[in-house]
Amino acid sequence: MGTRIVRFEKDNVEKWGVALDGEILVLEDNYSSLNDFLENGKEKAIEIGKLGKGEKISTNEVTLLSPVTWPSKVVCQGANYSGHRAESGLDASKPPFNLVFGKDISSLSGAYSEIVRPKHVEFLDYEIELGLVIGKNINKVEEITEENLSDFVVGLVSVNDVSARDVQILEGQWLKGKSYRTFGPTGPFLYLLDEDEYSLIHDLEVNLWVNDELRQSANTSQLLFKPAETLTELSTIMDFAVGDLIITGTAAGVAMSLSPDVVGTVTSLGVPFNEKSELFSKTQKLVNNYLKDGDVIRTQIKSTDGRIDLGEQQNKVVPVK
Amino acid sequence: MGTRIVRFEKDNVEKWGVALDGEILVLEDNYSSLNDFLENGKEKAIEIGKLGKGEKISTNEVTLLSPVTWPSKVVCQGANYSGHRAESGLDASKPPFNLVFGKDISSLSGAYSEIVRPKHVEFLDYEIELGLVIGKNINKVEEITEENLSDFVVGLVSVNDVSARDVQILEGQWLKGKSYRTFGPTGPFLYLLDEDEYSLIHDLEVNLWVNDELRQSANTSQLLFKPAETLTELSTIMDFAVGDLIITGTAAGVAMSLSPDVVGTVTSLGVPFNEKSELFSKTQKLVNNYLKDGDVIRTQIKSTDGRIDLGEQQNKVVPVK
Repeated sequence: MGTRIVRFEKDNVEKWGVALDGEILVLEDNYSSLNDFLENGKEKAIEIGKLGKGEKISTNEVTLLSPVTWPSKVVCQGANYSGHRAESGLDASKPPFNLVFGKDISSLSGAYSEIVRPKHVEFLDYEIELGLVIGKNINKVEEITEENLSDFVVGLVSVNDVSARDVQILEGQWLKGKSYRTFGPTGPFLYLLDEDEYSLIHDLEVNLWVNDELRQSANTSQLLFKPAETLTELSTIMDFAVGDLIITGTAAGVAMSLSPDVVGTVTSLGVPFNEKSELFSKTQKLVNNYLKDGDVIRTQIKSTDGRIDLGEQQNKVVPVK
Repeated sequence: MGTRIVRFEKDNVEKWGVALDGEILVLEDNYSSLNDFLENGKEKAIEIGKLGKGEKISTNEVTLLSPVTWPSKVVCQGANYSGHRAESGLDASKPPFNLVFGKDISSLSGAYSEIVRPKHVEFLDYEIELGLVIGKNINKVEEITEENLSDFVVGLVSVNDVSARDVQILEGQWLKGKSYRTFGPTGPFLYLLDEDEYSLIHDLEVNLWVNDELRQSANTSQLLFKPAETLTELSTIMDFAVGDLIITGTAAGVAMSLSPDVVGTVTSLGVPFNEKSELFSKTQKLVNNYLKDGDVIRTQIKSTDGRIDLGEQQNKVVPVK
C-alpha cells in the first residue's frame, strides 16, 4: 500500500504526518510547502510510515489542511466525462480537444473545512474530481505513457472543484467562478503511490453525496482524456513543478443542468449579458440540486479493490459572514 | 525617478541588477525568484541605484530575462479597452463584469527573446499590456483605492500577451492558447515606482509595432476596469503573493478581427467544433495582420511626461524547431 500524507494544524502550528487508521504519525521536520515536502521529506515519510514508529496523535485532535499548498498551481480539465458533458448540454463523445483552465491555489481548503458561499452567488455547485500530483519538474516536451507515468505523477488527491455557476458560466472564463477561497476541499490524504499501483488510477470509484443523497458516482475508467495523454499535451505548452496539481474533471450528477439550446446561448459572447443572465437564472431556478447554506457534502475516492483510498471529505456550506 | 530592475544571464549565471543608461549595476546578492528579490533585495537595490556605484556591465553583454519569475502567478484582464472590445465583436462599453483569466508563468520570456510559434498555430497574435506587480501579500478582502494603491502594487512591467487565437478562441477557455512557452515577453524593466509616481499609472502610452508598422497605440487612461477597482474585486476572491503579476488587458489593433455575428458563433458551446473552426478560419484568413515567422514585434510603454519608461521589447517570431 502507498503512503497517506496529511498536513494539519494543532495549537496554531502546521505540521505534516503519515496517516494511519484514526491516527497520524507526526513528521519531525517541517516543510514550508508541498513542493518542499516532496523535494525534502517524501522518502523519509515513506520510511517512517512503513516502520509505523514515532509520535502519534489522534486525527480527532487536529484540523486537517489541504496537502497541496502554494506555490503549487492547479490546472483543471473540463468536461472530461461523457455523462457530465451531456448534462451540460454538450456532445457526450470525446471532443477534439482537451479543455483546460485554471483554479487558483488559494481556493484549496481542508477536507473538513466549511465552504463559504459569497453573498452574490446563487448557483453554487460541487464537482468531485481525482487530482494528480506532479512528482518531477517538467520544462520541455515529454512523451508520457502508462509505462513512465510514475516518473511524473507522485500521488493522488481528492478535490471538490466547487463552482459558482453564475460567475463561471455568465462571465465565460472559468477562473474566477472556480477560485473563491474555500472552493476546493482537498485531501485529506495525499496518497503517494507505490510503483505497482499506477494502473489503479484507471479504476477508482468517485462518489459524492449531498446530505447523504448520492449525487455523483463514477469510475475513472470513464475519463475521456487520460492522465498520460493529458500530461503529454500539457508538457508541449507549459512547465510544471513538483507539487503542482492537475484535476481531471468531474462526472455526471452536478447540480447545473443545461440543455444544448441554453448552453449555446449562455456561453455565446454574441448574446447580451442581461439576456444570458435571465435565461441562465430562469432555467437554473428550476433545478433543485444547487447547494444551500447548511448542506453537507461528503466525498470519497477509492479503488474498487480497496487498496487505494484517498479518504473522505465532509464539508458544510455556510454563508459569508 | 523610480528604480529599474533587470534580471539577466551572463556566462550561464543568472543575476539581478539595476538598469542605468546602457549599463547594469550588478547586485551582489542573488535571488531565486522575484518573490525572493522583492522580499529580501528590493530596498538595497533602490539604494544602490541611487548611489550608482558598484560593478557595472554593458547591457549588450547580457541576455535579459523576465523579471517576473516562478512562483509568481499571472492573472489577466480581458477586453478591458473599448477599442479592443469593438474589434473583437463585443459591445464597446464597460461590461457588467471584469473578465479575468490565467496565463501560465512559464510563458513569460525575456524582452528580446524569440517567440516560438507551435506548428499547429496558424493565427498567432500580439497584445501589449501594462503589468502590475504585487508588493504585499493579500489574503483577505481589501479596499484598495488610489490612495493606498502603493501599499499593494510595487512596480510596473511591460508584457506582450502573445496569443494563439485558434487555440484560445476555438477551445473557449483561454489559458492554453495564452500559455505556450515564449508567449510572454516581459520587461525589460521591473519599474519600482516612487511614491509620487502612482498617478502616472493612468497616463502611460502603450505602443506596439510589427516590422516597424504601428499596430497598437493607446493610453492607460482608457482602461475600463482600473487597477484599484480590479485589485479590490480580486481580493474578495483569491490570495496574492509578493511578485504576482496582473496584466491589465490590451488595446485596439491586434490582428484578430471578429464581427459580432462571428464572435457569437465561434464562442458558443452550442455550435459544433468543426463549424466554429471553419468559420473562424475562413474569416481570419482574410486578415493580414497575424504574425508570420520572421516578423519582429517592438513594444514600448512610457508615461507621456517621459518620467516612467518600462523599456523597449523586440521579439522575433520563429517556427518551432
